[in-house]
Amino acid sequence: MKLTLIGAGPGDPDLITLKGIKALQKARVVLYDSLAHPSLLDYCPEDCVKILVGKRFGKTSCGQDEINDLIVEKARQYGEVVRLKGGDSFIFGRGYEEILFAAEHGIESEVIPGISSSYAVPALAGIPLTSRGVSESFWVITGTTKQHELSKDVRLAAQSTATVVILMGLHKLQEIVAIYSELGKTDESISIIQNGTLEEQKVVTGKIGNIVPLSQVSEMASPAIIVIGKVAALPDLSYDKVRGMMQNSQSVTAD
Amino acid sequence: MKLTLIGAGPGDPDLITLKGIKALQKARVVLYDSLAHPSLLDYCPEDCVKILVGKRFGKTSCGQDEINDLIVEKARQYGEVVRLKGGDSFIFGRGYEEILFAAEHGIESEVIPGISSSYAVPALAGIPLTSRGVSESFWVITGTTKQHELSKDVRLAAQSTATVVILMGLHKLQEIVAIYSELGKTDESISIIQNGTLEEQKVVTGKIGNIVPLSQVSEMASPAIIVIGKVAALPDLSYDKVRGMMQNSQSVTAD
Repeated sequence: MKLTLIGAGPGDPDLITLKGIKALQKARVVLYDSLAHPSLLDYCPEDCVKILVGKRFGKTSCGQDEINDLIVEKARQYGEVVRLKGGDSFIFGRGYEEILFAAEHGIESEVIPGISSSYAVPALAGIPLTSRGVSESFWVITGTTKQHELSKDVRLAAQSTATVVILMGLHKLQEIVAIYSELGKTDESISIIQNGTLEEQKVVTGKIGNIVPLSQVSEMASPAIIVIGKVAALPDLSYDKVRGMMQNSQSVTAD
Repeated sequence: MKLTLIGAGPGDPDLITLKGIKALQKARVVLYDSLAHPSLLDYCPEDCVKILVGKRFGKTSCGQDEINDLIVEKARQYGEVVRLKGGDSFIFGRGYEEILFAAEHGIESEVIPGISSSYAVPALAGIPLTSRGVSESFWVITGTTKQHELSKDVRLAAQSTATVVILMGLHKLQEIVAIYSELGKTDESISIIQNGTLEEQKVVTGKIGNIVPLSQVSEMASPAIIVIGKVAALPDLSYDKVRGMMQNSQSVTAD
């Protein structure tokens, strides 16, 4: 019996890996999250059984225990089961818990990594998490720990030179801002990216000192990714932005 | 004129994204790193011009300035240029420098993220960078800064509860061990993964207190990734390991 965990990537369905597609093409049963793009299921054979699991926006959903039980049940029924998860299954994806449970029931696992939104969402908003001479490290933290609290690591992170990325932390924005402010870092650059990599992407960039009102005026909502550090202030040189610059000023195209 | 930066992923050629493949299929000229798997060039049209750039293991190579100049030259010549880089181009990949240079010469850029070895190499060695209740954050640091020194962030990282990932840092292993030891963390778990995701992958796991001799006995060499934290001690439940467990003990398959 075998469990294959596939990371579906951050949203755009073309950001799944070839290895992920090949695994979907052989799938007999897929347990998928609502964070995985639904069009990815089109790669599955016609007779593949597709089961939506995982909660999102308060819809009826499974808890982790129910997902674990389903994995074992379906692996026994079909000999193998595919688990399609948004992003990467090992970065706040609880993938390890699923393979641990599977292993305890004699089911082998294969992990197929996915593009994690932690760096791809900033990238597609024009923000590199590292840039030579600007940032030589990055720290990815969940805004919602097991105890539903902001991680204590945020205070240490605020003292470091790392680019700090906080996932699922928009509802803790005031708490984050308070920590940086106490350390005198009101001028630190910060970006909030909502619906990253999708057409409805929304980005707000400011300073620790003004991001709370900026975020309120822009009506930023979860799910969103917060990036704090010098890289958040780098000019966005992505496709659309440079095209805009070129339209606005022919001097940019001159050598 | 347009520059497309594609992240090729950590080694295994099937870990490129579908979006990356589609961009290669339309490429007229590709500048590729030796870290990108050579078989990826098979996706390019037959008449596509393929140019190896970037240095590796002391072979004749281009510096970053030469690569930047080549990007502009080829974009002017062909109207567009594809840049294929190992891993992800925004995580220690100097991709931002390339699009900055391109933008200054009126060339638009598009970034196609790649699977970063920073988390995929540990994942395929059975190590999740985060795991609920074990680690709620991870910090990725380069072992080789612009000044060729170990980043000062390592000392702060050693005081945090984050999983710490150090890239290009094997030659600084003794220095890293000294920092953790000074903080009394000789029992902290540490893994070194060489040639991650490839067939010749080699993994050594130990404690801060014994990793230097372990690494020497195992003849670990660069390029390698270092993972420090509780997750490094989690049992490896990947496909091969569980298959091995099952072969060694039928009790594992019992319910």
